[in-house]
Amino acid sequence: MKVSHIEHLGIAVKSLDEAIPYWENVLGLKCYAIEEVADQKVRTAFFMLGQTKIELLEPTSEDSTIAKYIENRGIGIHHMALACENIEEQLADAEAKGIRLIDKTPRKGAEGMTIAFLHPKSTQGILTELCENKNK
Amino acid sequence: MKVSHIEHLGIAVKSLDEAIPYWENVLGLKCYAIEEVADQKVRTAFFMLGQTKIELLEPTSEDSTIAKYIENRGIGIHHMALACENIEEQLADAEAKGIRLIDKTPRKGAEGMTIAFLHPKSTQGILTELCENKNK
Repeated sequence: MKVSHIEHLGIAVKSLDEAIPYWENVLGLKCYAIEEVADQKVRTAFFMLGQTKIELLEPTSEDSTIAKYIENRGIGIHHMALACENIEEQLADAEAKGIRLIDKTPRKGAEGMTIAFLHPKSTQGILTELCENKNK
Repeated sequence: MKVSHIEHLGIAVKSLDEAIPYWENVLGLKCYAIEEVADQKVRTAFFMLGQTKIELLEPTSEDSTIAKYIENRGIGIHHMALACENIEEQLADAEAKGIRLIDKTPRKGAEGMTIAFLHPKSTQGILTELCENKNK
């Protein structure tokens, strides 16, 4: 595989209203977008931190995977997203190397990115997302 | 506070020998250093991923905080380190804003960095390290 940088960190929070002030007032970052991703049952808030985005994830339903994550593990870093080109090729390469794909084919994520998740059991315990910006 | 980027992600692993091949052979990164940090009872391995380092942390003793973390939470992302200037000022600002400091004064970390940890109970569930390179 070939990945260039950490595109974003996905961070599970109970409430954007409670979490955003930490990132803005304490760390001094600026929330530049809030977006609802209906099919993942989350509301997201975005910040830039150098080359990497911070993506806060607030569950909008009790059966959201983020709600379940918080119930089991508490709030905190939920996943790491890696930027790549040719996401289809990266997925094929990952699978050939024994990585378990959550998404066999890429799908649309927040901010119009094309994304696919890899299973943490095969990625050193880190839920890992591949991310390609096909709009640039 | 003022932070510029994610200096590194600290990742808890049971064994560097088992973990390094994932980062090298699957993700295509290059391990550029292995260093033992005796007072933290870890062996570390470093990779560059864009602007951010990946720091694998292998416990060298059963009473290492990393060994305890793995016992409680499993392997995975352990902490997020943010790059800053004037770390003493950042710590004073954090404390003034109600953040609980694990290190009241900065200390030496891996790679000769000057570091201090903030308590995850006050940083949205994310064990957060401040990092300054005072050698540049």
